[in-house]
Formats: sequence, C-alpha cells, structure tokens
Amino acid sequence: MPFEYLTPLLRDSESKIVLLVLDGLGGLPIDPGGKTELESAQTPIMDKLAREGILGQTIPIRPGVTPGSGPAHLALFGYDPLVHDIGRGALESAGVGLDVRKGDVAARGNFCTLDENGNIIDRRAGRIPTEEAIPVVEKLKSIQIPGVETEVRHVKEYRFAVVMRGVDLAPEIEDTDPQQTGVTPLRAVAFSPGAERTAALYNQWISQARRVLADQPKANGLTLRGFATHPGLASYQDAYGLKAACIAVYPMYKGVSRLVGMDVIEFDGDSPQEEFAVLARMWDDYDFFFVHIKKTDSMGEDGDFQGKVKVIESVDAAIPTLLGLNPDVLVITGDHSTPAKLRSHSWHPVPFLLWAPASVRPDTQSEFGERNCASGSLGNIPALDTMPLVLAHGMRLNKFGA
Amino acid sequence: MPFEYLTPLLRDSESKIVLLVLDGLGGLPIDPGGKTELESAQTPIMDKLAREGILGQTIPIRPGVTPGSGPAHLALFGYDPLVHDIGRGALESAGVGLDVRKGDVAARGNFCTLDENGNIIDRRAGRIPTEEAIPVVEKLKSIQIPGVETEVRHVKEYRFAVVMRGVDLAPEIEDTDPQQTGVTPLRAVAFSPGAERTAALYNQWISQARRVLADQPKANGLTLRGFATHPGLASYQDAYGLKAACIAVYPMYKGVSRLVGMDVIEFDGDSPQEEFAVLARMWDDYDFFFVHIKKTDSMGEDGDFQGKVKVIESVDAAIPTLLGLNPDVLVITGDHSTPAKLRSHSWHPVPFLLWAPASVRPDTQSEFGERNCASGSLGNIPALDTMPLVLAHGMRLNKFGA
Repeated sequence: MPFEYLTPLLRDSESKIVLLVLDGLGGLPIDPGGKTELESAQTPIMDKLAREGILGQTIPIRPGVTPGSGPAHLALFGYDPLVHDIGRGALESAGVGLDVRKGDVAARGNFCTLDENGNIIDRRAGRIPTEEAIPVVEKLKSIQIPGVETEVRHVKEYRFAVVMRGVDLAPEIEDTDPQQTGVTPLRAVAFSPGAERTAALYNQWISQARRVLADQPKANGLTLRGFATHPGLASYQDAYGLKAACIAVYPMYKGVSRLVGMDVIEFDGDSPQEEFAVLARMWDDYDFFFVHIKKTDSMGEDGDFQGKVKVIESVDAAIPTLLGLNPDVLVITGDHSTPAKLRSHSWHPVPFLLWAPASVRPDTQSEFGERNCASGSLGNIPALDTMPLVLAHGMRLNKFGA
Repeated sequence: MPFEYLTPLLRDSESKIVLLVLDGLGGLPIDPGGKTELESAQTPIMDKLAREGILGQTIPIRPGVTPGSGPAHLALFGYDPLVHDIGRGALESAGVGLDVRKGDVAARGNFCTLDENGNIIDRRAGRIPTEEAIPVVEKLKSIQIPGVETEVRHVKEYRFAVVMRGVDLAPEIEDTDPQQTGVTPLRAVAFSPGAERTAALYNQWISQARRVLADQPKANGLTLRGFATHPGLASYQDAYGLKAACIAVYPMYKGVSRLVGMDVIEFDGDSPQEEFAVLARMWDDYDFFFVHIKKTDSMGEDGDFQGKVKVIESVDAAIPTLLGLNPDVLVITGDHSTPAKLRSHSWHPVPFLLWAPASVRPDTQSEFGERNCASGSLGNIPALDTMPLVLAHGMRLNKFGA
C-alpha cells in the first residue's frame, strides 16, 4: 500500500474527485522578470478556482530531479517512484494496452537492420514509419513458443512491445541491444538463475522472429530491452477505495494508469472539450477521474511558449463542462514542469490548485500561476503527499486514533 | 553516495557553480521588530541577485538543532551529518592538512600539565600560546613506533592532531582525557577487540611522548580524544561528477572539504576580495567552488552586530569580481545562524539565495534578508536538499525515468 496508515482509515463516500493533469504545466519566463506560460495565459476560470481554493507547489520526485512522465505520474498517484522502479518493458506494454499481469515478463522491442552477416547496420531500422512497421509487427504475432503465451503490439515507428505469459517466468534478463552497430544483436542472458528458463524462451522467440523477418528490407532484425514484470503496485481500489478511470490520449499515461488499476476509457478526439465530454459520460460510473492533457508538454518541448499558453487557455475554456458536473474535489496541476525556455522537462516545482468547496480553507491567492502557487498556503509539498489531501477533501478518511 | 538516485543521472557539463558560504550568516534583530544583521547591511549586489534569483531558508540539520561548523558544512555539501558521524580526530587532522586516509587512525591531542606524581593539574597546559606550542609539537614528530607511521601537526594553542598509519588499525578507542584534574591521563583502551593492537601502539606512542615532554614547564603531558578514521565519504567527483575546489582561510573548513575530495587551494590573505581573486585564478581548473567567509561567524560569536554588518557589506562589495567570471549557478548562504544577539551558533533557519540566470524561476522577493528568504518560493528546505538543486541548475542531471 502506498500509505499504510491511510488504508485503515478509508471510509465510503459518494464524493467525486477529478485530478486534471496538464502535462509539463510548470514553466519559466523567457526574459528575466517576465511571466511564465501559465502566468501569461488568460485563465478566468482557473483564477476563480484559485480564489476559492488553495494553491501550492509540488516537488515531483525529489528536489532537483527532473522526472520522466512515468515516474512523475506515479508520484502524483501516491506511489514513490524511487521505491517502485517500474521496468520500461512493463510501462511500454501497459501503455499500448498489453495486459501485463503479475508473473508476466514484458520487454520493449526495436526493429533494426542487419547485414548479410547478421551484424547491425542500423539500430533503428531506418526509423521506419508507423504504417510500415504495423504489418511487420503483425508477422511477429504468428510466433508460437511451446509452454508460454506471447503477445506483441506495435508502439510507434520502429518500436514494439512484447509480453510473455506462463509459469515460473522471471525478468532478470540483460538487454539484447549491444548499443552499437557492426556487431550482432546479443542473446537474451539471465542475470539471475531464476530467469534462465525465461531467457531461453525469449531466445527461442528471437530465433523465430529472425526467420519471420528475414525478407524485410529494413526491419530484418530486432533487439529487446527493459525486461520487466508487473510492478505489483496496489490498485487504487485497494489503496484508496476508489473506483478510478483514466481519460488520456497517449499510451504512456494509459499504461501508468492501468498499472495502478484504473479503468482506461477509450474514446475518439483529443481536445480538452472532448476529454471533458468523456468525463461527463462516465461520471456516474467512477469515484475518481484522472484526466490527462498532453499538449502543454508537447508545446513546452517544442519551445513554443505561445503555443503552450494557448493550450492552457483552451483547457480553461473547457473547464465549465467539468464544473457543471459538480465535482467535490478538483485538482489542477502538472506532473512536472516543461518550460518552453528549456525545451525539455525540468526539475522546477509544479503549480498545484486544490478546489473543494465544502472543505477547503482558502488562502490569499487570486490567480493560478507559479508565483501565486509559490506563495500559496499549501507551500512546497512532495507530489506524493497530494493523494492523502485529495482523499481527505473527498471526506473519504476516518479519524486516526481517538 | 549521498544521493543514490542522483549518481546514475549525472551528465557532463561545462557549467561553473559557486557556493559562497558566509559562516553564521543568519541573525536576529537586537530589538523586537528590528532588523537582522543581513537586513541591516547595505547589499545592493546581493539584493539585485535576490531579485533575479530565488530565495528560501535552509534547515541546517534538523529543526531546532544548533549545528557545529563541521556538521553544518557536511549538510550543505549533501552528506547527512546524522548519518555520517565524522570523528573529531579525522576532522581536526584533515583541517590542519594531515592526510587522513581510509584505514588511518587520527586523534585530537591536548597538552596538559602534570605534577610530580603524574596527576593532571591543568587539562590545557595553561592554554599555552601557539608560538610556545609549536616547538613542543616539533619534539613529538621525532617519535617512532615500529610497524606504523605517525604524523603530528599543531592545531592551535595547546591543541594538536596525530595520525597513525599502518595495516589493520581501528579507531574504537576511548579518550585518554579523564575530564578532571588530580588524576593521571588514562591509557588508550580499545572498546572493540579489533582496535586492541591500535590502542597498544598508541600507548607506546604516549609513553615515548611522556619522555620527550618530561622537561617541559607546562606541556609535560598530553591527552588524546576523538579517535577516528577517514569517514569514507564519497568524493564530490564520484557523487556529483564535480571537480571541486575549496577556498577557505580556516583549517576546519579545509578539513571538511578535503574529506569530500575537494582540492584545497592555499593562498595568502583573508579578505573577501582576496578570496575572490583566488577564485578567478583557479576558474578554469574546476567545476565547483566552495568559498568560505569566516568573519561573519566570528563577529556573531563576539556579539558584534555592527561588525557582522560590515563583513557582510565587504562581501557584497567584492561580489562583482565573482560575477565577472559568469558563473552559471551562484549560491549565497550560511552554514548556520550566529546571531550577534545570542553570541553563539543557533538553530534558526539560514538565508539562502540561488541565482542561475538560464534556469531559475524567480520569485517575488526583492532583497536578500531573513524576512525575504522566509517568503521566498524555495520555502524552508533542508540544507541537504540544496546540492541536488545546484546540480539541476548547473544542467548536470539527466531525466529520471521516461
């Protein structure tokens, strides 16, 4: 359990909680003394929520640590990413909807190009596009290994994921990617005795894959990395008593959500308005909704300050749909900062807004922005500490002790 | 490693980092409602840096704990002093430039005055001045013990340090100072079986020392305390990937710096201007510079409020030299507070200023002073958390996870 002391305190409640994550929300001013993306955006709705609610800043993982999206979301969900090291194989597989269960062994796969001697000449198979890769992945699905079940799914461009399911499997296997060209892909080698059988099974799979791919012009070889099993995280239901749904567009976020037992809602469209429409449709079926907005991060990564401002404004404009559902608790935050100025994720604290009309003690802040959040009365808190606050404001925790 | 999770994230960078420590910087107003030493000082340069940078307060060790200078610096350097209990023998020896290596056993020595029966009549040998003590320490250097190498060095007044070097030495030895007069100094007694040989070797050394000192009028005896070995701290190079230099005047600070693998730069002079001139001279040779200003603390200990104000102003006036080098990250802080009002170190939080033009998210503060730091957006953070922030702003950390 992520918080051993909380679980015994859980109580039933009809409350509805929404965690709205604008990926990479935190920013930086371009010029000294200027405004950040969030401060520049016209956000009348979020500003109203800031006046009625409480502000703070979260530290995603630890001070100074720039998080990847997987660990950053785990922390927001209440699972310490320094404790729960989720193998990339499991994250990638779960992300594309492959069901990674306890005992399964998943891996990330890359297509590569081999010469006539079997040596790698391109570690990414010429970065073949998705439409070229999908039929090649289909061929891999035909491979059968006696005694185990394998599932393969395309991820993006030259990347795919594979899951092996059976008894007595173990993930302690070295990557088969030699990280250089001019040599052959490595064999799967176990680094613990318990994983030797799994490595042998994977080597059988790799041999068959080589035959299946032999006539491909570019993707005639493959490497496997990040062998991993299900991280065994307690589910939201067990840890928090929450029936939880994920409304996200990108596979990665769906993957992390699945690993903590959320139901991933599939839908068409990717605008905030469309995501909130899905939220409205599923409103009666869940206690907790994780809604993920990706484009704030994408714009930050592209160095597009104004683009990020516009995405934030589009989310603001759509929030009335969400408020119309009368949530009991609404959190608006990011998983990490992605300042357009840096064109990358960063370690800076993340703006955090908690709105809960029945129970929040408002502070003196009147706008949703980094400087206001830095002066908000929640202070600087680890992202890990936010789920207990959310449960409390959802009136879902009994008193500790008498 | 001080931060296990950081070391795998380290990446190369050309960035230059300066940690400017004004010892005992934090203060108190003399009268209720008044200004502290730092708030009273005219510091136009630091105020400009405060506007462009970010402020906070550090908790040196734990809330309410008044630190000694050794532990306070260790914490700033990223090593938890509650975990790394550095024996005073090792600290004192390293401080005076004795090379304490892993496996060596160092101790602090005090001269004392013995009567004709060998009983202590003055535990500090009449506090003999340095110039009187130095020739006596010279005599101790002649002592030779078969099988080990010993080095002795004068520290200050009646104090010296001794290091024993050889195979299978161990520091678990009780102090030989009985902490009272009228009795003889104690023999070196091991409190673990592994240290019995070392205790015997030290007893041989003590016996020879007694003969060497027999004709001294005051310093005719000695006691040894704080037996310790090298604490085995990971070096700055290993822990942070930083080639680090220490620019300090006092032995203690040089000692702590040596124990974390910094190069100690020797130079003449002790003004801020002279220290910054050394910094400029060594600029190309290091990634990280620890610059230590002692006199803020000395003035605080003397209860000299105005004297401390003047020292702070002299540092401010010298900072342009430092800024002319274009550091990427500049931290200005103290190791602890030494309010002139209290005439001693104290537990109060310490003003902390982080300036990093390329990456800092400025807050709303406009001056460098305790009240401003208490409202700064870094909040109250453990001193231990500052090195990861500094590495992040130096762009020396890769992303954690994907």
